[in-house]
Amino acid sequence: MPALPFSLHPQLAQDTTPVGDLALSRVLLMNDACYPWLILVPRRAGAVEIVDLGDDDQALLTREIAQASHALRAAAACDKLNVAAIGNVVPQLHVHVVARRRDDPAWPRPVWGAAPARPYEPSLRDALMTRLRAAFGAVLTQP
Amino acid sequence: MPALPFSLHPQLAQDTTPVGDLALSRVLLMNDACYPWLILVPRRAGAVEIVDLGDDDQALLTREIAQASHALRAAAACDKLNVAAIGNVVPQLHVHVVARRRDDPAWPRPVWGAAPARPYEPSLRDALMTRLRAAFGAVLTQP
Repeated sequence: MPALPFSLHPQLAQDTTPVGDLALSRVLLMNDACYPWLILVPRRAGAVEIVDLGDDDQALLTREIAQASHALRAAAACDKLNVAAIGNVVPQLHVHVVARRRDDPAWPRPVWGAAPARPYEPSLRDALMTRLRAAFGAVLTQP
Repeated sequence: MPALPFSLHPQLAQDTTPVGDLALSRVLLMNDACYPWLILVPRRAGAVEIVDLGDDDQALLTREIAQASHALRAAAACDKLNVAAIGNVVPQLHVHVVARRRDDPAWPRPVWGAAPARPYEPSLRDALMTRLRAAFGAVLTQP
């Protein structure tokens, strides 16, 4: 892994709103009101695959996926969680954690490419953000 | 988690061929020659979400996803790994680990629902299975 500073891929920066930082990962909220949808980006320059991370970072990422899962469940009613590291288009390692509902626009299909992103009404996004930050609690810091 | 014996969901049994067992998970090969595609099913009755597993099992699953990733890379040329726990259709917790190539039928889309499954020519499937089992090595046992 090159000793470069971490910087967020411009496509991820454009598609999301920052929530905060966990010990390893930056947490982002997808700008898509169709689903409460978090993205975790480990702050490790050059990482593409989960197996590019060292064992300790893989364990941290696992814990942070669980923290994001619990935060989503606490902040938004949902029937199922979807967790995925795909990265065929944006190579920077990032993990989707998506709260799915049986009445969401893509159900039961996966969310990628299923329905056009729907912008958040700003006050609804702010309210969700407040609930998410409260649900993460002290493990989440502002970058 | 109910104290029931583990049994594989009939849909997963129908769509796959067993590769072997890791410490926690049954390893299955998807019956789809479009992509080298493994599925890990933690042998815990009633588990639906990764966060349904205890912390030790989550750590084991993380290690087994890495073992499956390395085995796929060793057994089949690939450009990208896709790792996902979705489960909107089959609720039994299962994790997809898919070896993707830029010339595969779905690239760069995710594989789910993208292209009809293509049956393996039996000798090609047997050869892939042999390479996969060799790549897993002693961590893989026969159920």
